[in-house]
Amino acid sequence: AAHGARKMEDYGRFLALLASTLLVGFLSVILSLVWVFHYREGLSWDGSPREFNWHPVLIITGFVFIQGIAIIVYRLPWTWKCSKLLMKFIHAGLNTIAMILAIVSMVAVFDFHNAKNIPNMYSLHSWIGLTAVIFYSLQLFLGFAVFLLPFAPVHLRVALMPIHVYSGLTIFATVIATALMGITEKLIFALKNPAYSASPPEATLVNCLGLLLVIFGSLILWMASRPHWKRPPAENAKILSPIGATPEGTEVESTMTNSSNADKSDLRGNTEAARKQNIKFDEAGQRSTM
Amino acid sequence: AAHGARKMEDYGRFLALLASTLLVGFLSVILSLVWVFHYREGLSWDGSPREFNWHPVLIITGFVFIQGIAIIVYRLPWTWKCSKLLMKFIHAGLNTIAMILAIVSMVAVFDFHNAKNIPNMYSLHSWIGLTAVIFYSLQLFLGFAVFLLPFAPVHLRVALMPIHVYSGLTIFATVIATALMGITEKLIFALKNPAYSASPPEATLVNCLGLLLVIFGSLILWMASRPHWKRPPAENAKILSPIGATPEGTEVESTMTNSSNADKSDLRGNTEAARKQNIKFDEAGQRSTM
Repeated sequence: AAHGARKMEDYGRFLALLASTLLVGFLSVILSLVWVFHYREGLSWDGSPREFNWHPVLIITGFVFIQGIAIIVYRLPWTWKCSKLLMKFIHAGLNTIAMILAIVSMVAVFDFHNAKNIPNMYSLHSWIGLTAVIFYSLQLFLGFAVFLLPFAPVHLRVALMPIHVYSGLTIFATVIATALMGITEKLIFALKNPAYSASPPEATLVNCLGLLLVIFGSLILWMASRPHWKRPPAENAKILSPIGATPEGTEVESTMTNSSNADKSDLRGNTEAARKQNIKFDEAGQRSTM
Repeated sequence: AAHGARKMEDYGRFLALLASTLLVGFLSVILSLVWVFHYREGLSWDGSPREFNWHPVLIITGFVFIQGIAIIVYRLPWTWKCSKLLMKFIHAGLNTIAMILAIVSMVAVFDFHNAKNIPNMYSLHSWIGLTAVIFYSLQLFLGFAVFLLPFAPVHLRVALMPIHVYSGLTIFATVIATALMGITEKLIFALKNPAYSASPPEATLVNCLGLLLVIFGSLILWMASRPHWKRPPAENAKILSPIGATPEGTEVESTMTNSSNADKSDLRGNTEAARKQNIKFDEAGQRSTM
């Protein structure tokens, strides 16, 4: 009973953090809209600064908020009864949406720059931002090929999962850093009279938006890196289900079977021992994913 | 023998990554010096832009490079024969040096701003940078009080360690993001004829410096989050050594002894079982520290 109470308390803590994260994320999207509609010229697609304005709105909505949710989607306890395959589709789908929005938002900037004869790709913001988009696309492509399609051998999935998790979190952090550089650039360029250094209301509002992005990122990274909030390993009974539908624990268990580690495979005769082994190896997977 | 070979290969991989990290870190410090001495006015402490120039140099040397090394100092395999207490002193010492350099570098900017009547603390860079320094000081103070001084009870150390690790890595990433904002600001303000957008050599050099900072941060985060590169848990024999000198594994083992988890404490009669348990709990500690 005490164990159950602790579990409920932990569940409550997760929900409180999730609610805070969503709140901070929604607030960021709203502040980006307030910025663009109240202080700037609004949105349109005509080569004017209004086309540029799609850039912050789509980056914050897609590349920060939706990407953040995609990262923690496996952690939502009410999804643990859903198949791992379904969750992989949701994870990949959200990341695909985020990538499309990021690309559209980049097209908006190039279009605006070209219409106004402003050079492209000269700033550190553009260098790191483009690098992040390229790595994000690679990550999405590799994730799709290795973890979603049913062709990759299990040992490859096991070997690549820690890299997938590390890359995902590092790209996410880099995207937020890039957004902060973009905010800095835009406020310096756009605020002339009064200047950024005179702290007009727009500067204060957008600085707050930048702070919210850092808080959102920190919350996502905290939730994504707590091992006890991870999707639980699958029951041993599912070991023989097709690879596309295998939950992670099962994949790792299969690796064991394939491996030459005979003394460990011996345990598989005993279901309870195999289950424990399964969990242990799943935990090993967790540890190696930050 | 195959296991030993795999261990050596892994050791080689660690050394190669460490060498790359040090190279990228040194290169960053050198590029900051080239920036300041070749393209700017050099260094001095007289309220001129030369005083401002201490800011990037000290941030990159102290708050990025030395902080990065402080983060991975427990991972260096040749330190594993040193006492944990000595390593804690080195970790705390490097972080203290980094904090002092960060504070001096902030004083340089305030001094320069005041001499030139430039407002302080208006930019997102300054907001997030000051927040990072405050959290860094808190982290250092709490780390000192909880993990270095011998007064904190073991269960508190165990409970706070995952938070300490998460905060450390998150502050480090935030510091790099802040440095990127600072580079963006400085290049926009300092480059006038030709402007930043005309990509003069200084812009290209400093953009490369920004890229190096991202690579340095990514390498540190990778090394810090690989569980198999963690300092190994202490042998059971050392359980009764004074708390100040207890290695992490021992601390967690002591927690077990203090806990009400009687069925697990039973294992302690058997040395081999206790050793395994020790390692298991140490692994639990690793998992909970990202």
